[in-house]
Amino acid sequence: MTMKKAQDQIIVIFGATGDLTYRKLIPSLYSLHVQGLLPEHYAILGTSLLLYSEDEFRDKMRTGLHQQKQEPNLDLVEEFLSRVFYQYTHANDRASFGGLKEKIQLLQHTQTLPDNIIYYLATPPELYGIIPENLAAQGLQLQGNGWKRLIVEKPFGYDLQSAMELDRVLQKDWEEQQIYRIDHYLGKETVQNVLVTRFSNGIFEPLWNRNYIDRVEITSAENIGVEQRGGYYEQSGALRDMIQNHLLHMVGFIAMEPPASMQSDAIRNETVKVFESIRPIRDEEVQHSVVRGQYLAATIKGQKVKGYREEKGVHPQSKTETYVALKFFIDNWRWGGVPFYIRTGKHLPTRVNEAVIHFKPTPHYLFSRLGSHDSCNQLIIRIQPDEGLLFKIGVKTPGSGFEVQTVNMDFHYSSLAHQRIPEAYERLLLDCMNGDSTLYARVDSVMATWRMLDPIIRAWNTQPGIPVYGYPAGTWGPEQAEVLIGGPDKAWRHPCKNLSDDGIYCEL
Amino acid sequence: MTMKKAQDQIIVIFGATGDLTYRKLIPSLYSLHVQGLLPEHYAILGTSLLLYSEDEFRDKMRTGLHQQKQEPNLDLVEEFLSRVFYQYTHANDRASFGGLKEKIQLLQHTQTLPDNIIYYLATPPELYGIIPENLAAQGLQLQGNGWKRLIVEKPFGYDLQSAMELDRVLQKDWEEQQIYRIDHYLGKETVQNVLVTRFSNGIFEPLWNRNYIDRVEITSAENIGVEQRGGYYEQSGALRDMIQNHLLHMVGFIAMEPPASMQSDAIRNETVKVFESIRPIRDEEVQHSVVRGQYLAATIKGQKVKGYREEKGVHPQSKTETYVALKFFIDNWRWGGVPFYIRTGKHLPTRVNEAVIHFKPTPHYLFSRLGSHDSCNQLIIRIQPDEGLLFKIGVKTPGSGFEVQTVNMDFHYSSLAHQRIPEAYERLLLDCMNGDSTLYARVDSVMATWRMLDPIIRAWNTQPGIPVYGYPAGTWGPEQAEVLIGGPDKAWRHPCKNLSDDGIYCEL
Repeated sequence: MTMKKAQDQIIVIFGATGDLTYRKLIPSLYSLHVQGLLPEHYAILGTSLLLYSEDEFRDKMRTGLHQQKQEPNLDLVEEFLSRVFYQYTHANDRASFGGLKEKIQLLQHTQTLPDNIIYYLATPPELYGIIPENLAAQGLQLQGNGWKRLIVEKPFGYDLQSAMELDRVLQKDWEEQQIYRIDHYLGKETVQNVLVTRFSNGIFEPLWNRNYIDRVEITSAENIGVEQRGGYYEQSGALRDMIQNHLLHMVGFIAMEPPASMQSDAIRNETVKVFESIRPIRDEEVQHSVVRGQYLAATIKGQKVKGYREEKGVHPQSKTETYVALKFFIDNWRWGGVPFYIRTGKHLPTRVNEAVIHFKPTPHYLFSRLGSHDSCNQLIIRIQPDEGLLFKIGVKTPGSGFEVQTVNMDFHYSSLAHQRIPEAYERLLLDCMNGDSTLYARVDSVMATWRMLDPIIRAWNTQPGIPVYGYPAGTWGPEQAEVLIGGPDKAWRHPCKNLSDDGIYCEL
Repeated sequence: MTMKKAQDQIIVIFGATGDLTYRKLIPSLYSLHVQGLLPEHYAILGTSLLLYSEDEFRDKMRTGLHQQKQEPNLDLVEEFLSRVFYQYTHANDRASFGGLKEKIQLLQHTQTLPDNIIYYLATPPELYGIIPENLAAQGLQLQGNGWKRLIVEKPFGYDLQSAMELDRVLQKDWEEQQIYRIDHYLGKETVQNVLVTRFSNGIFEPLWNRNYIDRVEITSAENIGVEQRGGYYEQSGALRDMIQNHLLHMVGFIAMEPPASMQSDAIRNETVKVFESIRPIRDEEVQHSVVRGQYLAATIKGQKVKGYREEKGVHPQSKTETYVALKFFIDNWRWGGVPFYIRTGKHLPTRVNEAVIHFKPTPHYLFSRLGSHDSCNQLIIRIQPDEGLLFKIGVKTPGSGFEVQTVNMDFHYSSLAHQRIPEAYERLLLDCMNGDSTLYARVDSVMATWRMLDPIIRAWNTQPGIPVYGYPAGTWGPEQAEVLIGGPDKAWRHPCKNLSDDGIYCEL
């Protein structure tokens, strides 16, 4: 583990009695504690509108830690919990922030802590504006005696307009450098590994452009439905839930120019350039460049599965998409003419998240090849499961003559077994504690991605003729998505078909 | 198995009572028979100066087949042996070729065979000239009623002058298209795979030049000494035994331009261009560009091993090299300025045969890297053992920050387990039976390689001051070989050190 230790500080968590805190934030902080990566002195201050006592809050967190898979060390858990505190705050009640301020000052005094504070908004999105406003009303954002950082959970806005409004509210009192817009996807090792793969290997950069790349494909598939989150999802949909943040950031890392350095702003400058170079999808193109779908009831492995419209909290005539496939171009010197395809969906055949770089075929076929004349060369960057890299190359089929077959060259991150891969939240929390915002979304990139998606959102809202295609749960989405790629020998990669080749577990 | 069936024919083997026939040729022909790849009608006619009866000869061959690892099918062996015949011929006795001619005509009559004949010279090299001359004296090379092909075993000549003399004798009566100069190394799957790897993968060709390749390294290591062959080896040495044919042909495949087609002459045209582009090593450069060595007595795994000069048949002051390392340049547009390093030796730490393409490092280091600043990117083409491809690439070390470590992406030919990899001799025999000479050496390439090595042979003969460095058996040869590569962070790859990484079995 090569992470570094952060400065002494307080971490204030809003929405501390909620699910995210219980399942992710506290366990991640505990894990950092165990690894000795938390500062010498620190305090974690949970806050929400529930009237918990400090002991009750600690009990709840203890239960959460004990439920983690790995057996916790009882002494370490208690040592950690002794740094965990609780305070009531009502987000909409400005007066209650006075109490919060007093609690913070008390902790700084009793725990000998400097005035360095992270505020983590693990609350419903409606509160992302009001809490920072109320913190500022108490002067809790001022950096006179120490830094203050604000972590905003996703989603940042609901569309371009609401994102701009949220930003306006935040920027009133907070500086951009103080705001950390979380995207846990960017905290994943292999997403970061995209940067290293591209820029530490001399062999990739010469190939990484329109001359040698035929198309780029990014897939994020889930094999479950909306489960208990139907109410939330109904308001969100796949485009907002996955495309706007996760998949477009992946595009940013894959398509960016080499940054001047690995400083966070150098990297974010480059990803924003990518987003700003994406050719806007015109209203009348939406119908042909974007395919939306909704899963239908089906029987998977003998088990009946509900359709989306039958899920709890979902309107029976809902048009919310559980699947999106999208084709677009990046109009710059590197990528001119190379189509990018991204797709995401719920209740697909398997859980997989990968980027596929399809290289162009050789300029001349010297060898006979059975089947497809598409290039045999693909670089597959697997985010999950089984994080790693997969290279498809052609080799000679044994025997007389020169027949080519495609084989896999594989690297599994799990083979670096002696090195623990940290949870995304661990990495993101530690980065914020250290003031490193590389893996957080900067406002201009958030706006650029919303700007790209805005015509789609608008068209879906205003053109009732654009269909929502049904697809049976457990399939690879509507057939219309295949038409997006088109062309002979060209299709989406279906990892599920390559079970034994790729070692990807196929659940259907 | 995708090999095709050949035309009806007779295969005449000279040196039929020798080791090569017994251990390689007959077993390979039997294997082709079992696979149904031999023609409907064929005969194998062994001949030598020993007075065997046909039954005695068959008995000997039967014993050889039964000693093969895989259990032979008794019926198939007998069916095969019923097509095996024997005839006395004395190479230097022209009259005895009359008897051979009669026997051939008899077989053609009784076995209903057309006048297609292969003559395989599995004899000592001294006879490579006289036998074809004597065959021609009987008109046995004439192609009026069917083709005649002559397979000449290696070595083709002893130096440039003797090779030219042998060629002159052969070309007197035979056409170049009739002459198949064997190099069993070229019959190996992965040597051929070099061509497929290069020319079926669009991603390699853009990288395959002086802009992205730092250097090329080819190693052929044996972990045994000269064993029973001291007398032969004393006259040959590593330069003639390995460099002139095997390693330089490997250079040819790695460095050649894309051929117009996979026709044998198209490929051989390109390899010859490579040999002719090799910058001649001047007499005064030999001492610095070529390192020769001789293994010394040592104890390996507790076992005492003789030094070369103590081997049976070796002169106690012998200067014959058992190790050669060589640096040279190919002066053409693709390779200008890229050094090629080749080495071969006996009694090295392991048996390995591989080509390593060292790519240049990235133009700028964005990431910290422990240890070497040499590029992390290498493509290793393993010929043996464990045939396959190995790609070394940089990935992110898990954890915070961007530290790079080099990992392996691997392809093992053995993973195509359902496909049998044919013996080199099977492939070569079948190719010749089909008239495909791709994997045989054409006269111009033989001459070009001798021409390249001639200054070295001359310098070693005439400059007694050029040392023969001793190296203890079981080590990677003389230290002076390291100086050839030189430069910080640059060294020969020592596969033995990477045991667990590469899965290469290390015998020391």
